[in-house]
Amino acid sequence: MTTIEILGFTSAFLTTFSFLPQAIQVIKTRDTASLSLAMYSIFTLGVACWLVYGLVKQDSAMIVANMITLLLSSCILAIKVFNDMKSKRTRLAEQ
Amino acid sequence: MTTIEILGFTSAFLTTFSFLPQAIQVIKTRDTASLSLAMYSIFTLGVACWLVYGLVKQDSAMIVANMITLLLSSCILAIKVFNDMKSKRTRLAEQ
Repeated sequence: MTTIEILGFTSAFLTTFSFLPQAIQVIKTRDTASLSLAMYSIFTLGVACWLVYGLVKQDSAMIVANMITLLLSSCILAIKVFNDMKSKRTRLAEQ
Repeated sequence: MTTIEILGFTSAFLTTFSFLPQAIQVIKTRDTASLSLAMYSIFTLGVACWLVYGLVKQDSAMIVANMITLLLSSCILAIKVFNDMKSKRTRLAEQ
């Protein structure tokens, strides 16, 4: 394995698994107040596009990395959407 | 431009600029409580690695995309670190 390949895998590993601590924190605390719904919606769509790109190019590293990231960011997005809907319903009920 | 190239640029655009709304929200609200320090530390390091990877490969799209993402994620990370240090100092002062 060349140095540049090691750098590529390291970069992919870091940016992929960086979402794991955020997913764990959100699952544990259920607190998503300071997370941006726009960010996770756009990012999750972007990662899905990268996954299709990897499938078309038949690049296994890209496919695996983006499947993991898609799983993690979708989980964070789902909890964010659920929390935002719940707080909207609470605000409406109080009016 | 081929369809696959358009898909690649779209994916890069979405995952790069997805951090803009999060950076704006953090700058406006100063609220970083539910952001994971571990995520932004690891992610920012990973994006820096991708930037070096792009420079070595002399891939302009990768260089531009990762420079923008590095700027945005470093900004979010800096405010998160600043807030965490401030709240730690406040807790120590109260003891």
